[in-house]
Amino acid sequence: MTKDNKDTPRLDEHPGEGAVRGTQRMEIFADAVFAIAFTLPLLEIKLPEAGPDFANELLTLWPAYLAYLLSVLVIGIYWVHHHFSGAIYRTTGHHFLLATLLFLAIIAFIAFPTRAFAERLSDPGSREAGAIFYVVALAALSLAWLLKWRTGCATRDIDDRLDPAYVGRLTRRYQWSTALHAASAAIAFFIWEAGLALAAIVTLAKLRAPETPKYLDEAPEIDGES
Amino acid sequence: MTKDNKDTPRLDEHPGEGAVRGTQRMEIFADAVFAIAFTLPLLEIKLPEAGPDFANELLTLWPAYLAYLLSVLVIGIYWVHHHFSGAIYRTTGHHFLLATLLFLAIIAFIAFPTRAFAERLSDPGSREAGAIFYVVALAALSLAWLLKWRTGCATRDIDDRLDPAYVGRLTRRYQWSTALHAASAAIAFFIWEAGLALAAIVTLAKLRAPETPKYLDEAPEIDGES
Amino acid sequence: MTKDNKDTPRLDEHPGEGAVRGTQRMEIFADAVFAIAFTLPLLEIKLPEAGPDFANELLTLWPAYLAYLLSVLVIGIYWVHHHFSGAIYRTTGHHFLLATLLFLAIIAFIAFPTRAFAERLSDPGSREAGAIFYVVALAALSLAWLLKWRTGCATRDIDDRLDPAYVGRLTRRYQWSTALHAASAAIAFFIWEAGLALAAIVTLAKLRAPETPKYLDEAPEIDGES
Amino acid sequence: MTKDNKDTPRLDEHPGEGAVRGTQRMEIFADAVFAIAFTLPLLEIKLPEAGPDFANELLTLWPAYLAYLLSVLVIGIYWVHHHFSGAIYRTTGHHFLLATLLFLAIIAFIAFPTRAFAERLSDPGSREAGAIFYVVALAALSLAWLLKWRTGCATRDIDDRLDPAYVGRLTRRYQWSTALHAASAAIAFFIWEAGLALAAIVTLAKLRAPETPKYLDEAPEIDGES
Repeated sequence: MTKDNKDTPRLDEHPGEGAVRGTQRMEIFADAVFAIAFTLPLLEIKLPEAGPDFANELLTLWPAYLAYLLSVLVIGIYWVHHHFSGAIYRTTGHHFLLATLLFLAIIAFIAFPTRAFAERLSDPGSREAGAIFYVVALAALSLAWLLKWRTGCATRDIDDRLDPAYVGRLTRRYQWSTALHAASAAIAFFIWEAGLALAAIVTLAKLRAPETPKYLDEAPEIDGES
Repeated sequence: MTKDNKDTPRLDEHPGEGAVRGTQRMEIFADAVFAIAFTLPLLEIKLPEAGPDFANELLTLWPAYLAYLLSVLVIGIYWVHHHFSGAIYRTTGHHFLLATLLFLAIIAFIAFPTRAFAERLSDPGSREAGAIFYVVALAALSLAWLLKWRTGCATRDIDDRLDPAYVGRLTRRYQWSTALHAASAAIAFFIWEAGLALAAIVTLAKLRAPETPKYLDEAPEIDGES
Repeated sequence: MTKDNKDTPRLDEHPGEGAVRGTQRMEIFADAVFAIAFTLPLLEIKLPEAGPDFANELLTLWPAYLAYLLSVLVIGIYWVHHHFSGAIYRTTGHHFLLATLLFLAIIAFIAFPTRAFAERLSDPGSREAGAIFYVVALAALSLAWLLKWRTGCATRDIDDRLDPAYVGRLTRRYQWSTALHAASAAIAFFIWEAGLALAAIVTLAKLRAPETPKYLDEAPEIDGES
Repeated sequence: MTKDNKDTPRLDEHPGEGAVRGTQRMEIFADAVFAIAFTLPLLEIKLPEAGPDFANELLTLWPAYLAYLLSVLVIGIYWVHHHFSGAIYRTTGHHFLLATLLFLAIIAFIAFPTRAFAERLSDPGSREAGAIFYVVALAALSLAWLLKWRTGCATRDIDDRLDPAYVGRLTRRYQWSTALHAASAAIAFFIWEAGLALAAIVTLAKLRAPETPKYLDEAPEIDGES
């Protein structure tokens, strides 16, 4: 608003990308999908019947609680990184939106393989299949994230004031993460416990704060300030 | 903000349209409906029972996965076009809001005919009825989109800085799409496979980026930039 | 932004009302509740079993379709008026938020009495109870809307640049509407068809555009414009 | 926007906190989670079967109505305080987002212990376990709120223009509330009625308006004003 006009993209730039807009609307849609995906798994926890065993049955629901916890953890971690990436992107063109939709479709789906894993963990006949499904889904999520990132780079929807070296470090970080997730999925078909352990480590590593953006010139002001 | 005052509509213009406001709030409501419609179909995928057949039963859920995929695809495509149209509209009056609600009611509904098609596709006795229902619903969605567009044009909620020739091209594009969808619905009652194929082609054609907005004078700056 | 400072309320005015803020956040929360209430009723439409009767059973689901349609209609109408009122309110204090929550709790609830009416309409033993429940719920919704309006007036969260005569006309309109809804609820206990008809008329009358805001001095610019 | 540049944080401050941004996006995500958690409990109220007993069965659903009411009350109260706190926070760093996610995960979960309490209240064999579960969950919610607050203070995401004495009063208020909730949970294991009563009092006390923010210098303008 108070910046140079040449800093402010115009609606008719980025030919072939439809109506290129700021990131605000895409972020609101994405935040809403994240919020629903975050909250819906609760519906899958069924209240036990009334009776003297009620306390006990509340405790034996632990696989359902675990599924809720894992869903919330994974969706929450990706939401934090999506919130972060909202400071990195600057515009949203047509192809970037399509890549975002693919990523969000997997975010909305992830609760299902999570339940297939957590709610069948105590059943020896089912837990291998559930764990493989879950590890593969986590790998697909990581791959979709990388695809979204590469699309945003290719269509130049990323803030062009960022230091290219910084952008390169992010790219490598996302590539490594996806490579490890792919490895964990491959391993899970042979030794599911090992694949699961690797997927867990890679996922939990995302809890660390991403690197603060580096700019070529002065950093922009924080959005949303009055 | 930095533009001419005469570019900025006032709250008491557009008589007979209630309190004409900017598009932001309508877009947030619409984005939320899209996001919920996008995410809810997951709830219809039921986790198979525990047991040695668990892996197999996860695979035989393919009609439910297909329903999810189709829901997400169609709702996603319309969301991208709605996101695009948010750069085209400039205000929201009473009648435009009502037309938007009709469109959103069908967006929220579309998951049901999608399931009627995808989840009954493998049953010879049901698949024709399911496919016809789905193709008709896709045509209703396209018609509601066109109605929303025509209402926005008639009430002058569309950005009046746009080149009229550009607006005319969009109108024709939406009319053609609706005409083809109507044809696909009519055909489906006789040869459901042909109606379905036509509806699929028209829907997938929407994956292409819409034409970048053309303005009579200088294009506005991108919204949502800090 | 470009207006006089004395037009812009400060965060520490309105003592006893907590942190008085603009209407944006309240509107986003309300829009999200409206959007979910608008979309969730779809989950109550259950897909019929596969088989040669599938087409027929899709048609005999009409009470469920009717319930969806009525939910979407009533929630949509109130959303349009809530969108309108967002141009009327200017700040949100603690008590206005509490009144808004009460109204939204009934918006989120309304789908249930709607189903009790629509899905039991074809059963002679149930339809009177369902209709009474529905008419009473519509009256409660209207009353909560009025309560929210009166609270916003009393705490001066309404835009103080509005013409008091205009505000008075809105107040009378909401009072009349609530009085008629209360009458319809009372009548429904004796002749449910008459109560229902009156409630339907009062509800459909809300489809007309509300009166465009009148200001004492120049009208503010439209929000959300870039 | 019209304020001193030194008042406006830059995106690359707060090292180790990722991309520190304004509070807007976090608030939209949180508002969406609140809105869904607020609305979903309705899905747990099941429509009674058709028949002459329909009116009666609608009335005997009171435990389900009570569960809805309690969910809406508790979630609504926390939403009002979250809305309030949005005027207190100024930025959102990585660790503050993680603490917010933990809080929101419990908000989304709270409907389940609420139902375990309200829907089993009339069963002598179940009600003690349900009440204990509910009181413990309310204590966890209060603790997560306090943790979020302390994290925001520690990472300096709180508006640094606030009077430190005011911030201290809020901290003490949240600590007292959490201490009383913890006491109510401990008591509930021995006398569930007493624990429940204390938890109810502490929760209802949150209905009072929080203290209006006090600033060291002039208060900021209200956000969201056009």
